Amino acid sequence: MSLIEDLNWRHAVKAYDPSKKVSKENIDKIVEAARLAPTSSGLQPFRLIVVEDQETKEKLVKGSLNPDCMRDCSHVIVFAAWDRYTAERIDKVYDFTTDERGLPRGRFSSYTDMLKAIYLKQSAEENFAHIARQAYIALGLSLAQAAELRIDSTPAEGFDSKVVDQVLELEKEGLKSVSLMYVGYANPEGDWLGTMKKVRIPTEEFLIEK
Amino acid sequence: MSLIEDLNWRHAVKAYDPSKKVSKENIDKIVEAARLAPTSSGLQPFRLIVVEDQETKEKLVKGSLNPDCMRDCSHVIVFAAWDRYTAERIDKVYDFTTDERGLPRGRFSSYTDMLKAIYLKQSAEENFAHIARQAYIALGLSLAQAAELRIDSTPAEGFDSKVVDQVLELEKEGLKSVSLMYVGYANPEGDWLGTMKKVRIPTEEFLIEK
Repeated sequence: MSLIEDLNWRHAVKAYDPSKKVSKENIDKIVEAARLAPTSSGLQPFRLIVVEDQETKEKLVKGSLNPDCMRDCSHVIVFAAWDRYTAERIDKVYDFTTDERGLPRGRFSSYTDMLKAIYLKQSAEENFAHIARQAYIALGLSLAQAAELRIDSTPAEGFDSKVVDQVLELEKEGLKSVSLMYVGYANPEGDWLGTMKKVRIPTEEFLIEK
Repeated sequence: MSLIEDLNWRHAVKAYDPSKKVSKENIDKIVEAARLAPTSSGLQPFRLIVVEDQETKEKLVKGSLNPDCMRDCSHVIVFAAWDRYTAERIDKVYDFTTDERGLPRGRFSSYTDMLKAIYLKQSAEENFAHIARQAYIALGLSLAQAAELRIDSTPAEGFDSKVVDQVLELEKEGLKSVSLMYVGYANPEGDWLGTMKKVRIPTEEFLIEK
């Protein structure tokens, strides 16, 4: 199998079979693909919250535009981004990186000083616009990983982030939800998109060669 | 091979061997992974510009923080996002989709009306923050595709988008560059990151379970 075959296989599933659960081993792989995602300066400025508990999912329903997907999917993965960059967060990542590489802490200090000079003078909104993009790299890779495992999924932005952040107590972690990913196995009867042709704009329009 | 193996294999290459070129067939696959990327409401609000011409790359050098990568890589892929959502752009995508599915145009008009109600009242900046995220889903998938092919690459945000947009005449296409991706084969002598351990924050910190 190839990534392109996996991407052609997947679609945004519109209804799940509540009786079918994704194994912990496979959820771990979907999380691992996100953890391995490349991010700007390696800061990994987001976290994944995996929700399996049905009661918690019920609390999230009121923030969701897809209440049936929320209820019937096996797991909901919430992609939550740092609310902003801070010197402490940047230093923590680079201290860990140098420790892991057996290098002295501060080995990359001219680089981290530059990052701080750029990010800390920006507004929280400017920071967040940059941070959220990084989380979407990981979202794409988790969707691809689910497809490789032939597990159905749905990326979902249509939700009330205030509700999700409150239910999952993300504010105290300095996180803000940016995307949901429903994971499970489709219910073919309700999944109206499953029988429709996958459509993408033609390559000749998508690609500009110079 | 698996996606996780591919992601573990890759790193952000810091120096390229200018004598080694990536085949057209493989560039096509890297573009195809981006074209197949899932995007919000299926709008695919970005384009890829593939630059192989050395003279054009030289013009882009002055906008780049990695002039050696720009010069020595085989191809530069520019991810360029729509500058904003418009009714015309939304309708064009959905007209094409319904045509491809043999459905009457307007079949999804209640949905596209809702999209227009949301997006058209937003500022161009709010639109662009959302659009750029979609491009990053595709960026991640193109990086994964290069890794599957064991082709080296580097995602790069450190560049002057004004220079890139001007050289590639993106403004007249209604596009703004958001990320570069250098593609080629590493020069092990200059690629200082290639010998360092890949570091990611531990799963127990990255993952929150509920």
